[in-house]
Amino acid sequence: MIPEVTIPTLFVDPVKAKANIARLTEKAKTLNLIFRPHFKTHQSHEIGQWFREAGVDKITVSSLRMASYFAEAGWKDITVAFPVNILEIERINTLAEHITLNLLVEHEESIQWLQDKLKYPVHLYIAVNAGNNRTGLYPNNLDKALSLRQQIKQSSLTYFAGVLGHAGHTYSATGEAAIRRIHQDSIASLLPMVNTLREDDPNLIFSYGDTPSASTAVSFPGINELRPGNFVFYDLTQTIIGSCTLQDVAIVMACPVVSKQPERQEVILYGGGIHFSKDRVPYQDKLVFGLPVRWTASGWTVIDDGQSYMKKVSQEHGVLRLAQDWFDQINIGDIVGVIPVHSCMAADLMKQYRSLDDHSLISMMTYV
Amino acid sequence: MIPEVTIPTLFVDPVKAKANIARLTEKAKTLNLIFRPHFKTHQSHEIGQWFREAGVDKITVSSLRMASYFAEAGWKDITVAFPVNILEIERINTLAEHITLNLLVEHEESIQWLQDKLKYPVHLYIAVNAGNNRTGLYPNNLDKALSLRQQIKQSSLTYFAGVLGHAGHTYSATGEAAIRRIHQDSIASLLPMVNTLREDDPNLIFSYGDTPSASTAVSFPGINELRPGNFVFYDLTQTIIGSCTLQDVAIVMACPVVSKQPERQEVILYGGGIHFSKDRVPYQDKLVFGLPVRWTASGWTVIDDGQSYMKKVSQEHGVLRLAQDWFDQINIGDIVGVIPVHSCMAADLMKQYRSLDDHSLISMMTYV
Repeated sequence: MIPEVTIPTLFVDPVKAKANIARLTEKAKTLNLIFRPHFKTHQSHEIGQWFREAGVDKITVSSLRMASYFAEAGWKDITVAFPVNILEIERINTLAEHITLNLLVEHEESIQWLQDKLKYPVHLYIAVNAGNNRTGLYPNNLDKALSLRQQIKQSSLTYFAGVLGHAGHTYSATGEAAIRRIHQDSIASLLPMVNTLREDDPNLIFSYGDTPSASTAVSFPGINELRPGNFVFYDLTQTIIGSCTLQDVAIVMACPVVSKQPERQEVILYGGGIHFSKDRVPYQDKLVFGLPVRWTASGWTVIDDGQSYMKKVSQEHGVLRLAQDWFDQINIGDIVGVIPVHSCMAADLMKQYRSLDDHSLISMMTYV
Repeated sequence: MIPEVTIPTLFVDPVKAKANIARLTEKAKTLNLIFRPHFKTHQSHEIGQWFREAGVDKITVSSLRMASYFAEAGWKDITVAFPVNILEIERINTLAEHITLNLLVEHEESIQWLQDKLKYPVHLYIAVNAGNNRTGLYPNNLDKALSLRQQIKQSSLTYFAGVLGHAGHTYSATGEAAIRRIHQDSIASLLPMVNTLREDDPNLIFSYGDTPSASTAVSFPGINELRPGNFVFYDLTQTIIGSCTLQDVAIVMACPVVSKQPERQEVILYGGGIHFSKDRVPYQDKLVFGLPVRWTASGWTVIDDGQSYMKKVSQEHGVLRLAQDWFDQINIGDIVGVIPVHSCMAADLMKQYRSLDDHSLISMMTYV
């Protein structure tokens, strides 16, 4: 059924999203891991409810504002998987009064500031560098880890909860074997530090996870908690990495056709950088900004003919190169669906969804 | 003065922005060109007012929703420089009832649809491909241009106003000479078609313009109207292209420092892809996501030491590589300013500004 929309509109298929949620919830349960999914991908109370119905009661977010948004919906145990922003101490105190707030630290100054300014207790995780070289202590920096832990334990307001890492470099992998190799190396590099810390704190949580390894790895030695986020929707990037199939992707942008360029076999969509973001990914020897789908009676179906792809975006334009037979069928005013390269960014830009079920509005957090 | 903010915040310097507005307004006047600046960059009633004070009364926007937003603020002559989205016919009629609405067409089907559904007259511009191969008729497609014009003239609701092109490929230029070469070639390629159309319509408007050529070119032969947008703020990309200097850039993102990585001389900012976008640009042999500045008593000053730049962004993180002496001075909780790679995208993401003057809020259009 072709959506009756007039402007770029992000559709989510609840059947696919709930299947993605169920799959990883079950996997974590089977592996005896705490499941703390990252909600930065969907940023929605309503989609959060789908997780709650699957038994989830602990979540991850990427900002303190997002923690407030989900605390409003009754979430009581929230990890902010981002180096603590000490400037938001007021918000931290408001949250810590009402929920179990888990924060990420890696500097003495931040811990000191918290200990000086906190009015309610928080749980602290030491950030470790799982190999993607963004934040966190290097695995060989055991002295710093021990010293930070000691400092954390000096105040009753800061509870040492564990160690947190994010192997974001699985995103550069292609194929399950490559993901697993990064995953295994990453865990192996961190385990000596974690195990030493465990000598005095046998119950510390080693929190870990990214969508590629959570989706494909079969073993998580020494790990207690998984925090993937993107898997609720997946996207073209995750398909290429090997985390999912194109059939698992639960969101599609519906875009009006505003022009056809027969000389270049291109269709111009109303749908560009302010809708999809400018994330791009190499796919079948091309640099791709999205993958078009065909609408069916019950949703959409992926064509993946090797010739049809979004080749360019500007602020509001998307340039879609299509196979000749598909191009010939398209008319001005049609609605074409496009799988985003990166669903987290597209969702953040669109600030709302429509359900594929009944086209009802699914609201999201808004910043302003 | 270091801004007293706690989260990523986009600052605009009204002095610089108004100087940028004045410079191009004056230039258009001197060259006897209609000045119709593109408001997609700032998307703000208040900043629109700065243009009004400079004498501007005609504007360009990139969507019909944006046209509605600026019509609400009293703008009476608005061009939507985007292939008309016929699905938004209701909005078109609402706008056309109240303002001079200029739309862009390049297909018979779109013109036919408008002629069937319009209740109030609109002005139509035929889109021409100025060389960036996104939308518009190729310059040699005179037959199509003549036939579209004939079709447009068949209804009293569609007035043939002129021809509109956007030489977006100046964005791939580096340096004034390269911009001017593209600019001259682009105009030269279109003039035969435009001049033929002028034989019957001597008063048609040839509307043209992009920030690089509007900023640097000294001659606009055969052109009647200029539509640059980005110049109100400029950005790192425009500096590299040669449209402006770093001192002309009127916006900076203020970002909290949340981590320092001495092993890599990197500072981690709260400020990432959902604030800056993921636009990047080659700069001094590096791929750069932004350029850091130092705060001064009256605003900011650009360092540009060849060693300090934003090297990576993820959803909320920005990774800033800094020269050693600068790195050593930075503390957790400091606020660092960053010039965006692409100001249009950063502004669209942030949905509001603060004025550098008094830190007052400057609101923008919101979509949801």
